[in-house]
Parts: sequence; C-alpha cells; structure tokens
Amino acid sequence: MTDQIADDITSDEDGVPSERVQFILDTGTNLFAEKGYDATSMRDIATASGVSKALLYHHFASKEDIYARISFQATRNLNAFVRESIPQDATAAEKLRAFMRAAARFFSEHRSAWVAASNAFWSDPDRHRMERRLARRREFEKMLRDIIKEGIASGEFNPVDPAMTGRLVLSGINWMHRWHDPEKSLTPEEIVDNYADILLGGVCVKRD
Amino acid sequence: MTDQIADDITSDEDGVPSERVQFILDTGTNLFAEKGYDATSMRDIATASGVSKALLYHHFASKEDIYARISFQATRNLNAFVRESIPQDATAAEKLRAFMRAAARFFSEHRSAWVAASNAFWSDPDRHRMERRLARRREFEKMLRDIIKEGIASGEFNPVDPAMTGRLVLSGINWMHRWHDPEKSLTPEEIVDNYADILLGGVCVKRD
Repeated sequence: MTDQIADDITSDEDGVPSERVQFILDTGTNLFAEKGYDATSMRDIATASGVSKALLYHHFASKEDIYARISFQATRNLNAFVRESIPQDATAAEKLRAFMRAAARFFSEHRSAWVAASNAFWSDPDRHRMERRLARRREFEKMLRDIIKEGIASGEFNPVDPAMTGRLVLSGINWMHRWHDPEKSLTPEEIVDNYADILLGGVCVKRD
Repeated sequence: MTDQIADDITSDEDGVPSERVQFILDTGTNLFAEKGYDATSMRDIATASGVSKALLYHHFASKEDIYARISFQATRNLNAFVRESIPQDATAAEKLRAFMRAAARFFSEHRSAWVAASNAFWSDPDRHRMERRLARRREFEKMLRDIIKEGIASGEFNPVDPAMTGRLVLSGINWMHRWHDPEKSLTPEEIVDNYADILLGGVCVKRD
C-alpha cells in the first residue's frame, strides 16, 4: 500500500492514524515537550522520526498542523480517560474528586498536551478540526458541571453556581502547569486532592 | 536640565520616573494591549510617544526592557492597591474577599499588565529587577496567606493549608484572563465574588 492510499484511509480526524503518522505525532510530542514548540523545527521532527522532510510534508502541512493534530488527539484522550475514571456508584463529592484527579493525572502525564490545551492563543489552521476540538472542550466542561448539578439536585451540594464552580475547579487544574515544579512539589494529583478538600469542605467554619 | 541628568536622577527602580519616561511607559502599555507585544515595534512606541528612536533607545535598551519596566511598575502598584483595599477591622472572610476583589479589579483595569504578570515564561533582561519583581510577587502571595492564617488562628476558618488555599484563590484570579470576555460575561469582580462564596462556604452541605 502506498503512503498516499494509507493516508487517505486513515486521515479521518477520529480514525486511527497509520503507524507512521502516529509515530511522527508521538515523536513531535516528545520534541515539543523537551525543546519547546518554537525551538523545534520540521527538520528536527523528520530526523527524529527517521523520515525525509518531503515525506513529513506529505503527511503534515506545517509544524502548526502537527501540533494541532497532537492537541486534537489529546482532547479526545483526555475526555475518554476522565470519563472512565469517574466511578458510577459514588457520591457527587467522590465523582468531583475523581474528575479532578483524573484530569490532573492526564495533564501531568501529557505535559506538552496540557500546555497546548491551556493555551488560549492556540489556533488550528484547520477550522473544522478546531471547531470539533472546541466541542470536545465543551463536552469536558459539561462532564464537570453535570457532576455538580447532580450533587445539587440530590441535596448533597449547596446550591452553588455549576458554571462558576466548574470554572474555579478548572482554573486550579489549568493554572498548575504555570507554577508546578515536578522536582520538588506534591504531585498534581495530590495538589488537586487538596483543592478538592478545600472546595468541598469550604474555608469558613460552619456555625448553625 | 538635560535628559541625561534627569534620567540619572530618576532611573532608580523605585524612584519616580521622569514625566517623559512615564509617558513612554504608558504609551507602550496601551500599544502592547491594543496590538499585542509581538506586533508592537520600538518604532511604533517612538512614534506614538512623539520621540525619536534615538531618544527612545537612550531611555530603554530594548522593547523587552520597556515591557519589563511596565511589568515591574505593575507589581508595585498591584501590591499597594490590594493592600489599601483590605479593611483593617474586618473578619478574615471579609479580608479574603476584599483581596480577591481588589486583585481582580486591578487586573481588569490593567489588562496588559495582567497578562504580563501571569506569563511564567516572561523574563527580565535585568536580573536584579527580575529578582525584585519576584520578591514583590512573593509579598503579594504572602499577603493572601497571612489572611488565611489569621482566619485559622482565630477559629473563623477551618484548618486548611494556607499555601494550597492561596494557590487555588490565585488560580481562579490568574486564569480568568484566558477565558473572560469583557463583552458578555460578569465583571472580574463579580466572578471572584462568586469564587469567594464557593470557597468560603464550601460545595458540600455540612451535616453535623
């Protein structure tokens, strides 16, 4: 099978990419994480992937295209990983904590994707893919709000604003990569566990 | 008085810059906010400030230097503004809310400085100034932790981790500029008011 045919079969956004394309994406992810996006060239990616620059450009229009594709895969994997991590038979508090731990774990294991996902200035040259990526982001946020709404409906949670509460939870998770030092701090999972304690229990002592 | 002499007198980091230098800094702030840092050139700043490029380079080594100086001023102004906004005779909860509201208000009124302050990759070519800027950042964070510690000591707050709670509060404030749309959302002050309610009161209904 020629590259062209393989590419036609597997280039669907949600389809499984060919082994070679996936290998290039994984190589690119590692290089972006190690050297940074700006310092990584298409030549670096070609060399590290063991393909010619011509073949690399056959598969990807640009470095931005590779980054967009990595980020697109990451959003799908994030949603799937977090969804699978939330226990079905559990309190809303347990579900909220599981959501936070899973998101933090995913982001710490995929640091490059984490930075990409939290970069508001990031934009995909492929507008359709960009829209689908934003739809996945909304789906991720909805998963969180639904847990909060469930807790409110059952009387387990106070009547907090689900959107605002979700924003605050995601702020804690998203902002972490700006200050977290993997060498000397708690793990991201331990940090969000702390955040969950604070958010669920509240800072003020309740007197009633 | 020649420019050179005026500059020597007022170039101390904490000193009051000359009117001309301050005008250039304010002009630069506006241009960075309007056009973005990358799209703004030294020529743009010179033209908008009504000075020659030669004179601009007499006062500032580079565009990065201007940005660093703006950001340096902003950290001082932020600390002073927030400190003055916290009521002395108040509960820790009221102080915490005042801290959050003042920080959010400052950031929304100085959006360019807000983005600069929250850019972890930002670095100042002047290492001494960079260190003093980081010291101010620590001072800002300490102001917040001290409020939390005060609330714990008086029994008003639960024995939360002051550092973690401070991180969560600042995450909510710092992350806002990545999603907040001044056109259609609540104001930053209203948003952090919501965050304060959630944090202080807690998500879970207390049963004891």
